[in-house]
Amino acid sequence: MKLNFEREKLLNALSVVSKAIPGRTTNDILECALFNITDEGIIISANNNELGIETKIDGISHGFGKAAIDLKLMLDIVRKLDFPDGRINIKIDDENFITTISSGKSVFKIQARNGEEFNYLPDININNSVSISQFALKEVIKQTVFAANVNDTNKMTGGELIELDENMLKFVALDGYRVSIRHIMLNEGFKNDKCVIPAKNLIEIGRIIEGDSEKKITIYFSDNHVMFKYDTTSVISRIMTGEYFDLKYMLSSDYETKVRLSRLSLLNSIDRALVFIRENNNKPLIFEISDETLKLRMESIYGSMNDEIECDKSGNNIMIAFNPKYFIDALKAVDDEFVDIYMTNSRSPCFIRDANGMYIYLILPVNFVA
Amino acid sequence: MKLNFEREKLLNALSVVSKAIPGRTTNDILECALFNITDEGIIISANNNELGIETKIDGISHGFGKAAIDLKLMLDIVRKLDFPDGRINIKIDDENFITTISSGKSVFKIQARNGEEFNYLPDININNSVSISQFALKEVIKQTVFAANVNDTNKMTGGELIELDENMLKFVALDGYRVSIRHIMLNEGFKNDKCVIPAKNLIEIGRIIEGDSEKKITIYFSDNHVMFKYDTTSVISRIMTGEYFDLKYMLSSDYETKVRLSRLSLLNSIDRALVFIRENNNKPLIFEISDETLKLRMESIYGSMNDEIECDKSGNNIMIAFNPKYFIDALKAVDDEFVDIYMTNSRSPCFIRDANGMYIYLILPVNFVA
Repeated sequence: MKLNFEREKLLNALSVVSKAIPGRTTNDILECALFNITDEGIIISANNNELGIETKIDGISHGFGKAAIDLKLMLDIVRKLDFPDGRINIKIDDENFITTISSGKSVFKIQARNGEEFNYLPDININNSVSISQFALKEVIKQTVFAANVNDTNKMTGGELIELDENMLKFVALDGYRVSIRHIMLNEGFKNDKCVIPAKNLIEIGRIIEGDSEKKITIYFSDNHVMFKYDTTSVISRIMTGEYFDLKYMLSSDYETKVRLSRLSLLNSIDRALVFIRENNNKPLIFEISDETLKLRMESIYGSMNDEIECDKSGNNIMIAFNPKYFIDALKAVDDEFVDIYMTNSRSPCFIRDANGMYIYLILPVNFVA
Repeated sequence: MKLNFEREKLLNALSVVSKAIPGRTTNDILECALFNITDEGIIISANNNELGIETKIDGISHGFGKAAIDLKLMLDIVRKLDFPDGRINIKIDDENFITTISSGKSVFKIQARNGEEFNYLPDININNSVSISQFALKEVIKQTVFAANVNDTNKMTGGELIELDENMLKFVALDGYRVSIRHIMLNEGFKNDKCVIPAKNLIEIGRIIEGDSEKKITIYFSDNHVMFKYDTTSVISRIMTGEYFDLKYMLSSDYETKVRLSRLSLLNSIDRALVFIRENNNKPLIFEISDETLKLRMESIYGSMNDEIECDKSGNNIMIAFNPKYFIDALKAVDDEFVDIYMTNSRSPCFIRDANGMYIYLILPVNFVA
C-alpha cells in the first residue's frame, strides 16, 4: 500500500486516535493504530477496550489492505518530518509490513504489524441519539468531571452519568464528598435514556473535540457502548454496568442560610488559604457568615490565614468548614460573576447553584474546631 | 519591626534570593531567607553554603533587627496577596518572631526564627574583578554549561572554569565526552585569574539575571569565592578546589576533513533521529561525508532513519558516529547560520568552531558498525 497525506491532516488524525492509546501497557498491540485502506477510504483507529476512536482521513492511496503501526513512534516521526512541501509518504509492504515514512530526503523505516492482530472497534446497535454543539459538550465535561474519582474506573464514582430526559441533557459526577450536576437545555424533546461511562474517557473526548460552538457532535446510546460522532471521527466508550447513585436523596432545596457573593473574590480568598495545604495535610477552611461579611479562617502548623469578603446574606448566621480544594473546583466550574451558596447547618451539605438549577454543586462540610 | 513593600519589588527580591534555597533539605534554616533591617536599609539574603545571595530592597521600615523566614511559604503568600493597591505589610514581633504578612483584608501569620541562627554570607577579600554585560554572561552560561556534569559537584566535571586572560574572558565546561569553550572579548586588559565554580551555581546565576545588554554585572575573584554583583544584588559561589583539566592536550587545529553546512538543517536532521532514542538506549548516529553531501543514518530496534543534507566539504571523505544528543547541544549553543565542523578520523574528536576560535565545541565520536 502507498499513501500520501498533507502533514497537518495526518498529524491531526494521529493525535485524535492517540487518545485511545494507554499510557502504559505490556500489550503492545494496544500501542498501535490500525491503518485500514478500503474502497471507502483511509480509516485510522485505535482501541484500548475502554475507549475506541476511529477517524477517516483525506489522502491519496494506492492499493488496499491494513496494518497496525506503533502510534507514538509514528506521531514522533511525522511531527519531526517538518519540510516546506508539507506532505508525508507512507509505503507499507503487504508481505512483511515494513513501513517507510518519508518526506524530503528523510526516510524512516519501522516495522508495522499485520492488521489482523488488531482489536477492532465494536459494532454498535444504536437505540437513541442526541446532538449538541461541540462547545457545549467540551464545557460540560470540564464543569463536571473533576468531581469524579477519575483514576478508579472499577467503582461507579469513577464514572459520569449522562442522562437524556426529554429536552434536558444532564451530566453528573460525584466522589462521595461532592457532586457536580449540569443540565443542557435541548431545542427538542428526545426519548429518555441514560448511561454511566468512565470519567477518564469523557476527559479524553473533551481533549479531542475543538469546542467549536457552530459544530455539532452526536451522542449515540446503545446497550453496551456510547458513541460520540462528529465530522468523520467516532469515539466509542464502554458503559459502566451497575446502578448509579440516587440523586434524589442528596439534593434538597431547603436551606437556613443563603449567601450571594462575588465568585472571584471567594475563589481568590480560598486559593490564598492553599499556601498552608501540603500533601496529605488537608486542613479545614472555616467560613463564618454573619450580616454582610464572610470571614474565612485557616489554622495549620505552618501558620494561619484570616480573610474577609463582602456578601449578601439571608437567613441564619452560620459557621461551617470545607476542604478548600473542593470549593475551588466548584467555583472554577461556574462562569457567573456572583454565586449563590445555600447552607443548612455545619453538618449538612452546602449547595452552589443558579436560580433555575442548570448547575448544582454539592459540597459536604468537614469537622472543625471553632 | 514593621515593613511595607511594593508587592512587585518584594516578589522580585524573594524570587532572586530563593535561587539559594536547596530543593530538598532536612536543615530547615537553609529554607529561610534572612530579613536584616539596619540603618543601611533592608537586606534579604539566603545561603546554602554552596551559593549565597543577598539583595537590598526598597521599602519602608520601622525599627531594626533581623529574622529568618521560610522563603517558599513567604513567596507563596506574597504571590497570592494580589490586591489592587499592590502593597504588602510585614510585621515581625521582636520577641517571639511571629510574622504577620497582610494586604487588603487578608492576614497571614507565620512563625519566623531568630536571625542569629542564620548562616551569614562569607566576607570576601577581593583579588581581582571584571565587568561584562548581563546579556553576555547569561548567554555564555547557556552556551557552555550543558557540557558539565551538573549534578556531580564533587568532581571537577561538575564545575565550570572561568578564566580571565588579559582582554579575554573564557568559560569552559566538560564531562569527559565533550567540551564547550566560549571566549568573551573585553574592551581592556585585566590581571589574569581563574577559578572553577559548581556549574549548578552558574545555572542559578543565569536564571537570576535578566540578560539586559545595557546592564553590567561584575565578577569578583577571591581565594575561596567568586562574587557576581549587579544593582543591589550579590551572588556568592564557593570555588571548587583542585586542578581543572588541561585543555592543551584536548585541542588541536589539525584536521583531515572540514565540512561547512547549514546549522539548522543539521540540527533538524539529528533531532529527527532522536525518535529512536529511548531512555538508556543511546544509539550512534552515523555521519557519512563525501563530496557535497552528509548522509546521516541511525539503526535501532525500533527502526531506522536515513537522511541527507548538502554540505561543502574539503579534505578526505569520512565515516564517523556520534551520540546525537551531544551534537544537538553544541549546535543549539551556536547562533551562526552556517557552521564549520573539523574531523580527523572516526576515533578522534570532532570540533565545531568558528574562524577565530571564539567558540569551540569538542565532541568525542562513538564506535559504530558500518
